[in-house]
Amino acid sequence: MRSFNKIAIIGVGLIGGSIGLAAQKRGIARHVVGVFRRTSTMARALRMKAVTSVSMDIAEGVKDADIVIIATPVSLIPVMAKRCAPFMKKGAILTDAGSVKGFVVKEISKAIPKGVRFVGSHPMAGSEKTSVRFARADLFQGAFTILTMAQRTDKAALAVIRRFWASLGSKVVVATPEEHDRIVALVSHLPHVIAQELCILQDKKSLPYAAGGFKDTTRIASSDPDMWMDIFMANRLEVTRAIDRFIEELETFKTDLKSGRTKKILARSRMAKAIRDRI
Amino acid sequence: MRSFNKIAIIGVGLIGGSIGLAAQKRGIARHVVGVFRRTSTMARALRMKAVTSVSMDIAEGVKDADIVIIATPVSLIPVMAKRCAPFMKKGAILTDAGSVKGFVVKEISKAIPKGVRFVGSHPMAGSEKTSVRFARADLFQGAFTILTMAQRTDKAALAVIRRFWASLGSKVVVATPEEHDRIVALVSHLPHVIAQELCILQDKKSLPYAAGGFKDTTRIASSDPDMWMDIFMANRLEVTRAIDRFIEELETFKTDLKSGRTKKILARSRMAKAIRDRI
Repeated sequence: MRSFNKIAIIGVGLIGGSIGLAAQKRGIARHVVGVFRRTSTMARALRMKAVTSVSMDIAEGVKDADIVIIATPVSLIPVMAKRCAPFMKKGAILTDAGSVKGFVVKEISKAIPKGVRFVGSHPMAGSEKTSVRFARADLFQGAFTILTMAQRTDKAALAVIRRFWASLGSKVVVATPEEHDRIVALVSHLPHVIAQELCILQDKKSLPYAAGGFKDTTRIASSDPDMWMDIFMANRLEVTRAIDRFIEELETFKTDLKSGRTKKILARSRMAKAIRDRI
Repeated sequence: MRSFNKIAIIGVGLIGGSIGLAAQKRGIARHVVGVFRRTSTMARALRMKAVTSVSMDIAEGVKDADIVIIATPVSLIPVMAKRCAPFMKKGAILTDAGSVKGFVVKEISKAIPKGVRFVGSHPMAGSEKTSVRFARADLFQGAFTILTMAQRTDKAALAVIRRFWASLGSKVVVATPEEHDRIVALVSHLPHVIAQELCILQDKKSLPYAAGGFKDTTRIASSDPDMWMDIFMANRLEVTRAIDRFIEELETFKTDLKSGRTKKILARSRMAKAIRDRI
């Protein structure tokens, strides 16, 4: 079922490239245009057939597109939206793929004219790799995509974007930008902070023994530092809250341990195991 | 090269069973006796050929053994040592496989007669599985085993135990009990606390989104709660210190984030990535 004549992807990395591959494989769009800043990335995306055509000019890229997806680092999404908006056709929908939604929705609502309909998207897929080289048509298969429902969100546009992500294989859910940011802080951003700080805490004597369990716990600390700095900054309020709540849990455990409350320690480990085994 | 006529293993779980399998496969001992508390575990160990003979009586099990290895939960090691010691032959060496060494070395030196030579061992191998069912002859291959050098440690006995673990495929290093406990608190026990508390922090709304990164970070929270309660309690001093130092790192990160110090945040992420990528 071909739903769209043309989609435009601004920023063709792991996520943008995977959208392009998936949209073609599933026959969702006749034309998939990639908009690039660098010729090297453009050449690679073309070789991989991640897009059907390319452009280094935003105006040209988004012209006549039914959907424009901004898949750049999160801090650039509002400025890219502002650049795209004037060149989008009437009735076109703007969306994104950013990991933080409060910041993006707020900034974009300030940046774009009323006529352009924006729906925030966060496809919860990816890995510690970020380049288009790792793009895959099945990246969104079975993964959640959270769409944002804010005050200014157009319901018809939301329905279109919901169908778009669902047709890429994603399980689509809707949340407010604030609820989204709280959830991802707990389940994704805080684990990144923890993995990172656990690496930093090690010293020359302990590091040689960093094996199995440690490797798993810190795997995500290998991710792209620039991308994460961007995410941390964009979601600083909720990340800060999550860190505070996590420290409270650590303090509770520590108090139980110092006081030798073996039953409480055991109960915590059992609760954690029950939660983890369900995932 | 057959080094020993008989070794005795007290507690034949994942570690004890793997010692038995490895010792037989590598032809290190003619007889490998397993000492059991439960007939069900005994039957399983026999079926798996983890040991060459079995006993439910400590006196009989350790009789004539050149080496006695206590591979029970860490809290039981001292009391097991006390029970074994009177029945060990002259010149026999007692060792263990506990994850905590300060507590074990201190308690054992109080519990056993001067004639029995004890060397603390910690084979850093295993997984979240604990039963003899998961025992493997290659469990120690390439894994570190830390031996403890304390005031009362007999150098000749240390050399024998070093050869023993090396012949099972392990990379053997020596540390004081205190240094061992500090290292494992940082590299193993703290990651367990973190994985566990990160699970506990989640709620009904966030848990459905616990995917890739979260799964890796919390994998070890699926381990045996009783075993970990034991380890936490036995190493409570160093675990408490590690938690305090970790909270300090989190606070530093949080302050940088709240103050919008992007350069510092980026520097931390880069440092962590450099450390993690080296492992």
